[in-house]
Formats: sequence, C-alpha cells, structure tokens
Amino acid sequence: MSLPWKRLIRFRAGDGRILRGEPILPAERQIDLGQITEADQLQARVLEGQDIYDTTGATKVTDEIVTVQKILSPLAPSDVPILRCVGLNYAKHIKEAGRKPPPFPFIFFKPNTCVHDHGEPVVIPPIAQNDQADYEGELCLIIGKDAKNVPRERALEYVAAYTAGNDISSRKLQRDPAYAGVVPQWGFSKGFDTFAPLGPVLVAASEIPDPARLHLKTIVDGEVRQEETVGDLLFDCAYLVSYLSQGTTLQKGSVIMTGTPGGVGAGLNPPKWLVPGTQMEVQISQIGTLRNTVVFE
Amino acid sequence: MSLPWKRLIRFRAGDGRILRGEPILPAERQIDLGQITEADQLQARVLEGQDIYDTTGATKVTDEIVTVQKILSPLAPSDVPILRCVGLNYAKHIKEAGRKPPPFPFIFFKPNTCVHDHGEPVVIPPIAQNDQADYEGELCLIIGKDAKNVPRERALEYVAAYTAGNDISSRKLQRDPAYAGVVPQWGFSKGFDTFAPLGPVLVAASEIPDPARLHLKTIVDGEVRQEETVGDLLFDCAYLVSYLSQGTTLQKGSVIMTGTPGGVGAGLNPPKWLVPGTQMEVQISQIGTLRNTVVFE
Repeated sequence: MSLPWKRLIRFRAGDGRILRGEPILPAERQIDLGQITEADQLQARVLEGQDIYDTTGATKVTDEIVTVQKILSPLAPSDVPILRCVGLNYAKHIKEAGRKPPPFPFIFFKPNTCVHDHGEPVVIPPIAQNDQADYEGELCLIIGKDAKNVPRERALEYVAAYTAGNDISSRKLQRDPAYAGVVPQWGFSKGFDTFAPLGPVLVAASEIPDPARLHLKTIVDGEVRQEETVGDLLFDCAYLVSYLSQGTTLQKGSVIMTGTPGGVGAGLNPPKWLVPGTQMEVQISQIGTLRNTVVFE
Repeated sequence: MSLPWKRLIRFRAGDGRILRGEPILPAERQIDLGQITEADQLQARVLEGQDIYDTTGATKVTDEIVTVQKILSPLAPSDVPILRCVGLNYAKHIKEAGRKPPPFPFIFFKPNTCVHDHGEPVVIPPIAQNDQADYEGELCLIIGKDAKNVPRERALEYVAAYTAGNDISSRKLQRDPAYAGVVPQWGFSKGFDTFAPLGPVLVAASEIPDPARLHLKTIVDGEVRQEETVGDLLFDCAYLVSYLSQGTTLQKGSVIMTGTPGGVGAGLNPPKWLVPGTQMEVQISQIGTLRNTVVFE
C-alpha cells in the first residue's frame, strides 16, 4: 500500500488539539518515539484528511508544523473495528513449555474498548486485581483495506502498518477453574477497558519489508522479561492475515496482535504480577517503545 | 429507557430504499414478523433520525407509511460495536451434559462482521464445511446506552431491546484437537461472516418487563430441536449485563447473546450438521421467528 505517511503519530499538540502527523526526525539517527518527552520539543507535520489508509491522495501530510506535547496511541478506539489476537505463537516458547505446536493459530478477540494510549496507565479493575494481572508484549499489524479469503502470498499487501502492543491479561479469569470454569476463557479475561495499549507510532509497511527481522523485547520495572525475534513466530504475519481472512472480512483498521514470546509474569517462578506502579515497556526494533504504567481502579 | 418505538424493523421498502420503521400490526392479534412475506403487504411507519436509541425526541416515528418488501436484520453490522456472547448458560442443558455449573459466565466475542439479515442464507466458508456447522438459537439483548460497572439491580435499565439470534458455530474448529489444538477455540470458530443472523424485529425492553418469561424454540427443517424457557438461564439477563460491564464499557448498540439450551446439532446422536438448504428458525415468544437457510460458499 502506498500511504501518504511513513511514520504516523497521534498526539496532543502544544495548543491542546488532538492531531495526527508525521514526526520530524533527524535523518542521521534512529529516534525511539516512545522515549520522547515534552522537553524534547518534537515537531510533526500535520496530517490532513479523515482516512489514514487513503491511497488516492485525498489524505496528505501538510506543511503545517506543530510541536508535539504528548504522544497518544496512534489509533483511537473508534479507529479499530476489533483486535484479532493469536495465542501461543512463538515456537521456542511452546517448546519450552513442553507443548505440542498447535495445528492452526489459536485465535481470540479483544473489543476496541481495550485500545489505550501510549504513556497512560493501564487500569486494572477490581475483578482482575488479585494476583493475576499480566503483560504480553506483541508485534501488531494494522489492516489497511478490507481483506477476505486472501492467499498467503498476497496477504502482506493488506497490511498498512506495524506497531507495538501489550495484550494485558488476567490469568485467574483466563484459566483458574475457580474463576474461568473448566474451559479456559480468552475473551473476558483480556477484554477490559485499557487492556490493549498500542504505539508509540504506526510504521508504514513499506518501511518494514520483512517483519520476521524485527526484534521484540518487553522490559518490566527495568528488567528484560521477554526477548525474541519475530522470525520465531510459528505462524508468520502473512500466514495470519491469510488464515484470519478465511470466510471473514478483516475490516480496514483492524489490528492483528501476533502473539507473545516466553517470559510473561505468570511463567516466572515465583510469578510476578502487575501491581500499581509497575512500569511496562514493549520495545520493537524500527518501531520504538510502548510505555505504560499500571494503576488499580 | 423510553425509546421512540416499541417494535423496530429494518427493511427494504417497495421503492427499494433501506429504511427503519415501526411495523403497523393489527391490535387484535399477535403477528410473527418473521413469517411475513411480500404478499402480506406489511406496512410500517418510517423512523426518522440517526440514533435508534435516542431518548431526547430527536429520533421519531413519522407519519410516512410505506410498504415493507423484505424485512432485514434490525441492526446492520455497522450498528453493532461487537457481540458479547455466553457459552453454557442453560441450567438443564448443563445438568444433562453431566457438567458442573461454571462459577461465572463463559464469555466469548463475535465480530460485527458476523451480523446477518433475517431471511438471507448463512454462508458456510470451505474451512467450516466438513461436518461441523451448527446452529444455536439465542435470546439477544441490545445495549441502549454505554454501560460500565453497572450493579445487577440497575442493569436492565441499559437494555434497549430484545431480539432473536443464531450463534452459528463450527464444532471442529471449536473443539476438535486436530483443528483447534489442545485448548477449545470460541473466537475463530464462531466468527465468520454471516455467522450471527439477528431479527426479525427489535422489541423495546418496555414491552418485555420480565425476559425470564420468554420461551425459546429452535426449529430445523421443521423439527423442534431446542425448546426452553429463558427462565432456565443460569446467569440471567441482569446478571450478564452487570458482569460484562465490570471494568468494561459496553458500548451503545452492543449485542449480548445469552447462550443456547440443549439440542444443538452436535449433541444429537448421530449429530446433524448444517448442509446447503437446511432451514433454521429461532422462535422467541413476543419477538417472533428469525428464519435463515444455509448455503456453502
């Protein structure tokens, strides 16, 4: 897809407006937009037009330059029809856990009410507070045009951009029989408001010709907990788009969360749960760092 | 909620327009809108206004009377943010199956791309065609205003209306280890386009003071397969709205599918799967009959 931008942020400008724009970065070095603070006086060229996935020329990056006060999620909840997510998908993680690779991807959904801003605290509701809240750093794909029954070899043509995501999860509601019953539950336990922070930036697919070369790292309170190359995905990005589009319209703006590698809090011994003040960073090469802290509602 | 309508249909009018309106029914007898054909020359008063859940007077039933050519789903896919669905929820069905009642509702989601018209065939994609496609007749609630952290005793205030739904399911993709892997999958297997027919009419909550008294019947190829009173729900309508709203914004227009009683095709001996031409009817007292046939893509 030939989009009107290469990197797109959504942000609060110095004058209070919520805008989208292309950040102005020095050519000589890579800047991690997730580490930017107000003091950096980042500037951006404002995007004009309603459809960020437009390829007709109707949406464009203008010459209006503004100062970025705070980077938000690149997508607002209403920009995202739904998040389609993959469970166990990192091969080494499956092997470590002594599991057999699943024959097909394990799919679950998060409602768009989960979408949450970079830099804002994730809010854990009372029902998910008792030693169970967990992080999952993930590479996310953004679908740029409606896709249905797409063959694998053409699947990446439907991907507009990549970003980082954090699939916040409640482990007791997910798999403790006292909460979930006999069958694990992937819907309710991962579906609370703020449970899908995204960001800090959308990087156009044209800038990432091979997502398998991306490197993902999740850092919690300064400690590296997850670290893996996206090339370790059992079902890769093209496979996922193709598989998910079988009999199904993947609507423009849909987010696909590709799964998380080993190292979640539930897997540590003893487990380490999210508590008020926990600092989470999901860092992906070429994309940057999605940063969120935690509060209890 | 005080809505501008008591029964609302979405339909193609004689002149080809897609409209919403209040059907004009004879006062003396109950008419099943799901059994109406073009020959009945049903008439409706046209609804004017964008927000069918409006309580300010901005949306109203007008004096414009038109002939209904074909009743569609009362909600278009874009009217529905998401469908929040409940698994095992009929007490007798759980007992019959020798299962223990779950401690909390089993929740899964269907994307709004599943929403499908009354009267139109459900389309089974190739991936779900091999002896596994199944019906599930269900009572559906429609949320009329955003709800979050709602106590059970106020939960029904957020329900705008009721309708019938059919939670089309693919049993191999749901629970056969050769397809689903070791963990049952409730997302992908129930999430294909057309897999949530709704209708034939929205009945305002004001008309159904006690949903527990509704009676549900699913008739397949003329044979009654499911028959149960909604009063048998383990987690009733008010409980579901309250539970689902914990830490979660239930957006206006969201559909809650309340679960299905015993008698699905998978549970018969031998099982009876949906095949091209199967006639499905989900009949709920006071609401009417949602009718759909089946085609294979």
